[in-house]
Amino acid sequence: MSIKVVANDYIAADKVETYLALAKQIVAKTNANDKGCISYQLYSDINDPVHFAMIEEWEDQESLDAHMKSPHFVELIPQLGACSAKEGGIAIYKKAF
Amino acid sequence: MSIKVVANDYIAADKVETYLALAKQIVAKTNANDKGCISYQLYSDINDPVHFAMIEEWEDQESLDAHMKSPHFVELIPQLGACSAKEGGIAIYKKAF
Repeated sequence: MSIKVVANDYIAADKVETYLALAKQIVAKTNANDKGCISYQLYSDINDPVHFAMIEEWEDQESLDAHMKSPHFVELIPQLGACSAKEGGIAIYKKAF
Repeated sequence: MSIKVVANDYIAADKVETYLALAKQIVAKTNANDKGCISYQLYSDINDPVHFAMIEEWEDQESLDAHMKSPHFVELIPQLGACSAKEGGIAIYKKAF
């Protein structure tokens, strides 16, 4: 069964452009390279211009684990994190029924 | 452009079964009846047995607005809400790029 990930980020207003440029890189590299990636896209909250969420779908936990060890994840996630104004949050979900 | 909704619920431990039974009704009725519904499914947090999220995709804001006026939404959402142990949160997203 596939799993979904929702990773919320709250970005400093003066770092949104930097964040988006970095996010484009990880979205492109993840979709192009990561085995088991069904969908991996950045979304923006229509009511909050500094709130973003990476909404992801993976074939299984193993493919998500491998993604989190990929060179692009290890390089880019700390740079994306450095754009944050406050802590976000990540949840991993499976279908409830 | 389609929109996504992530609606998080934190349910009282003794009300999870009631919540799931109600959620099955609204998932079935929404997918069967609501125009513009691309996907509407309940997910559970793999790390927290009382944390659930309805993860939704709609063709546009108008179809989401109509869903929120549907008989099943008006009837069932207050009943689902009555199962909550603490406030959840809802966010509506569009693709960032």
